[in-house]
Amino acid sequence: MSTKKIVIALVVLSFWRANAQQRIPEVEALLQKMTIEEKIGQLNLLTPGGGVATGEVVSKNVEAKIKAGQVGGLFGVAGPDKVRVAQELAVKESRLGIPLLIGSDVIHGYKTTYPIPLGLSASWDMELVEQATQMAAREATADGINWNFSPMVDIARDPRWGRIAEGAGEDPYLGSRIAEAMVKGYQGNDLAAAHTMLACVKHFALYGAAEAGRDYHSVDMSKVKMFNQYLPPYKAALDAGAASFMTSFNDVDGIPATGNKWLLTDLLRDQWGFKGFVVSDYTSLNEMIAHGLGDLQAVSALALKAGLDMDMVGEGFLTTLKKSLDEGKVTEEEITSACRRVLEAKYISGLFEDPYRYLDSKRPEKDILTKENRALARKLAAHSFVLLKNENQLLPLQKNKKIALIGPLADSRNNMLGTWAPTGDVSLAVTIREGFKNVAPNTTIQYAKGANVSDDPEFAKKVNVFGPRIEIDRRSPEVMVEEAVALAKNSDVVVAVVGEATEMTGEAASRTDISIPDSQKKLIQALVNTGKPVALVLMSGRPLTIPEEFELPVAILQVWHPGVEAGNAIADVVFGDYNPSGKLTVTWPRNVGQIPIYYSTKNTGRPAPESDEFQKFRSNYLDSPNSPLLPFGYGLSYTQFEYSDFKLDKQSIGQGESISATVTVANTGNFDGEEVVQLYVKDMVRSITPPKRELKGFQKVFLKKGEKKEITITLSPDDLKFYNSQLEFVSESGEFEVFVGTNSDAQLSQTFILK
Amino acid sequence: MSTKKIVIALVVLSFWRANAQQRIPEVEALLQKMTIEEKIGQLNLLTPGGGVATGEVVSKNVEAKIKAGQVGGLFGVAGPDKVRVAQELAVKESRLGIPLLIGSDVIHGYKTTYPIPLGLSASWDMELVEQATQMAAREATADGINWNFSPMVDIARDPRWGRIAEGAGEDPYLGSRIAEAMVKGYQGNDLAAAHTMLACVKHFALYGAAEAGRDYHSVDMSKVKMFNQYLPPYKAALDAGAASFMTSFNDVDGIPATGNKWLLTDLLRDQWGFKGFVVSDYTSLNEMIAHGLGDLQAVSALALKAGLDMDMVGEGFLTTLKKSLDEGKVTEEEITSACRRVLEAKYISGLFEDPYRYLDSKRPEKDILTKENRALARKLAAHSFVLLKNENQLLPLQKNKKIALIGPLADSRNNMLGTWAPTGDVSLAVTIREGFKNVAPNTTIQYAKGANVSDDPEFAKKVNVFGPRIEIDRRSPEVMVEEAVALAKNSDVVVAVVGEATEMTGEAASRTDISIPDSQKKLIQALVNTGKPVALVLMSGRPLTIPEEFELPVAILQVWHPGVEAGNAIADVVFGDYNPSGKLTVTWPRNVGQIPIYYSTKNTGRPAPESDEFQKFRSNYLDSPNSPLLPFGYGLSYTQFEYSDFKLDKQSIGQGESISATVTVANTGNFDGEEVVQLYVKDMVRSITPPKRELKGFQKVFLKKGEKKEITITLSPDDLKFYNSQLEFVSESGEFEVFVGTNSDAQLSQTFILK
Repeated sequence: MSTKKIVIALVVLSFWRANAQQRIPEVEALLQKMTIEEKIGQLNLLTPGGGVATGEVVSKNVEAKIKAGQVGGLFGVAGPDKVRVAQELAVKESRLGIPLLIGSDVIHGYKTTYPIPLGLSASWDMELVEQATQMAAREATADGINWNFSPMVDIARDPRWGRIAEGAGEDPYLGSRIAEAMVKGYQGNDLAAAHTMLACVKHFALYGAAEAGRDYHSVDMSKVKMFNQYLPPYKAALDAGAASFMTSFNDVDGIPATGNKWLLTDLLRDQWGFKGFVVSDYTSLNEMIAHGLGDLQAVSALALKAGLDMDMVGEGFLTTLKKSLDEGKVTEEEITSACRRVLEAKYISGLFEDPYRYLDSKRPEKDILTKENRALARKLAAHSFVLLKNENQLLPLQKNKKIALIGPLADSRNNMLGTWAPTGDVSLAVTIREGFKNVAPNTTIQYAKGANVSDDPEFAKKVNVFGPRIEIDRRSPEVMVEEAVALAKNSDVVVAVVGEATEMTGEAASRTDISIPDSQKKLIQALVNTGKPVALVLMSGRPLTIPEEFELPVAILQVWHPGVEAGNAIADVVFGDYNPSGKLTVTWPRNVGQIPIYYSTKNTGRPAPESDEFQKFRSNYLDSPNSPLLPFGYGLSYTQFEYSDFKLDKQSIGQGESISATVTVANTGNFDGEEVVQLYVKDMVRSITPPKRELKGFQKVFLKKGEKKEITITLSPDDLKFYNSQLEFVSESGEFEVFVGTNSDAQLSQTFILK
Repeated sequence: MSTKKIVIALVVLSFWRANAQQRIPEVEALLQKMTIEEKIGQLNLLTPGGGVATGEVVSKNVEAKIKAGQVGGLFGVAGPDKVRVAQELAVKESRLGIPLLIGSDVIHGYKTTYPIPLGLSASWDMELVEQATQMAAREATADGINWNFSPMVDIARDPRWGRIAEGAGEDPYLGSRIAEAMVKGYQGNDLAAAHTMLACVKHFALYGAAEAGRDYHSVDMSKVKMFNQYLPPYKAALDAGAASFMTSFNDVDGIPATGNKWLLTDLLRDQWGFKGFVVSDYTSLNEMIAHGLGDLQAVSALALKAGLDMDMVGEGFLTTLKKSLDEGKVTEEEITSACRRVLEAKYISGLFEDPYRYLDSKRPEKDILTKENRALARKLAAHSFVLLKNENQLLPLQKNKKIALIGPLADSRNNMLGTWAPTGDVSLAVTIREGFKNVAPNTTIQYAKGANVSDDPEFAKKVNVFGPRIEIDRRSPEVMVEEAVALAKNSDVVVAVVGEATEMTGEAASRTDISIPDSQKKLIQALVNTGKPVALVLMSGRPLTIPEEFELPVAILQVWHPGVEAGNAIADVVFGDYNPSGKLTVTWPRNVGQIPIYYSTKNTGRPAPESDEFQKFRSNYLDSPNSPLLPFGYGLSYTQFEYSDFKLDKQSIGQGESISATVTVANTGNFDGEEVVQLYVKDMVRSITPPKRELKGFQKVFLKKGEKKEITITLSPDDLKFYNSQLEFVSESGEFEVFVGTNSDAQLSQTFILK
């Protein structure tokens, strides 16, 4: 690190830690020189197109606007040489030469695509999450990117919502830990370093609670629920030093997030102390017109006054703020404040020191898609898989068996990367068929497609918006199944790779029916009917409703969408080179009618028996148990783990004291393996209805076959706190019950008293 | 009316209208004489059992407690002679002789059961609703009842929730009008009159928004949503003079309603000015223990301090308040206030003047189940039916056809009354088979059951908790279908009566799957396959998901659960003696995955086209249109109505001014008929996201064949108001669009400006 870099790093550090009044002299000096038009120009984020747009608008005349000082940043431009062209336009041809922020959607790996975030979260491995995002930053910055529109930390409890794939699941505690790890991975300790980029925490706020699981739909919840359940990951990302926030498309308390002053100013800045800048989502400022808040000038003024600093693509700020200023609808101070925050981010990124900092033409080859990166992606993928069922210990397979590899996703390169991997390259992905050959080269593997992902051409058309994901075979479904069955009968074991094509989840990919499509259900049943052992490799970007499949005598390995090393990683696990250790980070319902369903639900005043036995006048359904098919935290291993000797170090503690829980975990099976030891807490009595239990600690531990370890997890005073009716973060004295175990149904428990 | 009665009526009137400080001298004098134990005794509501309990507890030692002055009211006791026994215990054997309130669940008729409330609401006929509840009051008071646990005014937008059957559907405006009509019907103008009873508005508040449609589950929403969408009907019932409120089982903002001071005191009394008393729901006070709020003493104290006056069945007040008083956890003033409110209700009911006021042994025979009452019930039922589809104008049937009457509900007396009719008598109900014979005595009607309501004995067991509702035939399903098909083939037309048994909806009867059970779906398909014309008479307590059935070439008449005159009313409509005029008061989804779905949804920032065409990056689903199967307000007639000449009387108005909409409606078909002319308003721009449109007026109009009428609906200033972010009830200047038509998809529109 050069001396100058160290100086900037120290300035940054002190800036983030200082009070809001502290100013960066270089930025203040620059502000002095700027016209009002130039200040407004910095608030404008454009995309010249070429990448994948997530809205209907793509920016026009970008070059001229950069020269005119009307652009604060770009996204959708990559590669040192291309970015240099844009950066030179800003630095050399605009009046003040202010460099551009260069943003990108690096959601799960830049070129070395790793599992979709929901899959990554299933690793419960914060070190791996940080390594993954570090790698993403190293690759993206090598390509000229200095700002990343990630992490998405939206809590999601509705698997109909396609974008559940892009987050870390349902839990605020786990979500917070992952948010922190991702911010650290992207930003490192020095935002000006060549391999780090600004993180952008999205989508602020509550985007994951879209009504009826329909993307972009309205959101509504009480403040108490926000603070206790939905806001913690945003706050955790902020506390980890996140440099920017992105607003969400939805309304919060009836006001679109992009124009919500309570959200962007009262909460984010005044209460939480955020000092970075806030960018809108793609045209979300303009979309406030459709929300019913006013015309473009009105919503732009509203957004600025609410605390929005940068307008993505919509040019509402660019085209109306001057007029609003002239008409007294906004103040120069408001424009200056927003501009200052954008400039401060550029300063902190080291762009003022060297606008070409990220533009080393040699770096892409050195840093992108390296052997090491692909090895990490393979490891990340293997760690993300969740073994849902393993009838007769079918898995792992021996490498000397004759395998029928079947299914529409078994040899489908187009479906390996997963949703929203615009920087990845589908052609580089390893299919399962290839992976099996790589890992078990001496095994006989025969392949048949067996079924289309879906037989419905209308549905396929919607899913294929970014490329061919569902390719409907010219053969009839019956012929395909027959071929697969014949192959199965001629094999020792069947591996069926089924589930969702990538764009069946993700943004604007909500489903009202989240079962496996009928075409594949028929295939699965036909394969099971052969009597051959069947392992299902289930690919999806969300929990699926699989009650029938789960009843079949099969093994089920949930692999999400694993990324560029998909096939290799799946083969690693299927053949036992890696013993699966993933755990679900979102509850799997039995059916859509149970939604929303999540483990930290309230007890209600008329709780149904935990046994799921029906009792009239209890809170239950006539036609379904209350329990999910698979609980949060669930995941099997090829080995078995036993928990014993659970104890707390104290029977009672005072306010502000910690308490430690210790449990012995033994690997009693026949494989080495990793276990995620989970700790849940129930606040027995408090002033607002407590959840039945809440995750408050976990540890991922490796145990050799036959090994046992004593695991200690310490609860901090904050772990016993919650937001009360007055939204104060407090702990209330009384009894707490602590549960420890292998998933959120953990039954080993101890109680203590908080005095 | 006697002079004394007039005096009481005037006192009552002035009491309700006066400020909170006004006292009733008789009550104050009584309070002076009461010990603290006697005051606490008045807060205790017991049920001696015998009726249908809706919880697990039934009161014990009721007689001794009444004598000891430990009981304020009873329910589950009926008949002048039986009630007299109880009342005499209180009046003659307790120290102060305070009479008892005698409550009952008269939900849709007392003995003369009329349609379930969701069905009644579909009449959109406020005069009929008032007549219905007047009749219920006349019958109930004849049987000694002076207090009714109705109306249930909970807005419900989740058809999984079984108790949607008991309310008026999804809309706050319509729900408010119905709430008013029901309160007026029960209470009349004089609560001391012998034929009126106290209404009890339930369930305060938000009970209809139970999470995941599971009864008793947690509720969560923003204050803005509460005030604009869920609270209006409670407020309307209060403004109509409702004498009592019942708390709901759920929590509101994390605090169970029964102990929620913001709800029961700050909002209900201080802000809304409620002067009556508040009773808990069945053991809902005790259930705060399970909610996690504390032990019985703690939750009892919390509830009293929150504003609860009477404890239903749980005896938490009776057994702990004295202790809490001694320990300084509640004040005597709090106990006295609650007691005063209970005593005031008794005073207003005229019970102090004559405790035996409602105990005339001759009244039951004179007032209950009279010919007139049954005629009204028949009329109410016919008016509640909604014609969903009428392929080839199949309905009405001619009386000279050979009819195959088929289906598990066609001859099922046990399923006619509908949910929660504990005072009704199943044996009096007219089946459809009987009704057809009554109305079309010369028509050949052949009957076959055709299918079980459900073939699942486990499901049947849950549904049969109050009696045999699903009776599984000894014959196989195949044999039953075969018999029905043979009958169909041998007939001119098929009428299939299918749907839900009564206890498939109602309290603690939520379903995750709201389709027609498979056994009946198979029957329907088999009948349609015969090629004979098929009319489905669909019986249910909720919207069902019927996308496949709706595509069939059939007529569908939705009849809810029609009450004691079910068969006659259905025959009246099927044979054309009454032309159906009902309109849905709740949206019918295509599938469970669309829930919640309701017409007054927000536009969002990325609205999908109204055409339901899929567009990427719009708010929609991959696998389902956004539109429901059937919109709110929908319902066909045997005739056709045409709308024309829609105009507003002004182009712009000032704050506080009214505006009138006029439209010409013509009956252009071949039958006389009634139409519900509906008017919806969209606030184009406002400070919080507006609903796409909201019902703000309607008129039910009768038009002879060929007749046309000019209909005028006036919008009051309040109709343009909403609760803003600060929860102020305001109108904001700007453009409004007004729609008029036959349902909530109405397309005729005009705009005006509010200055």
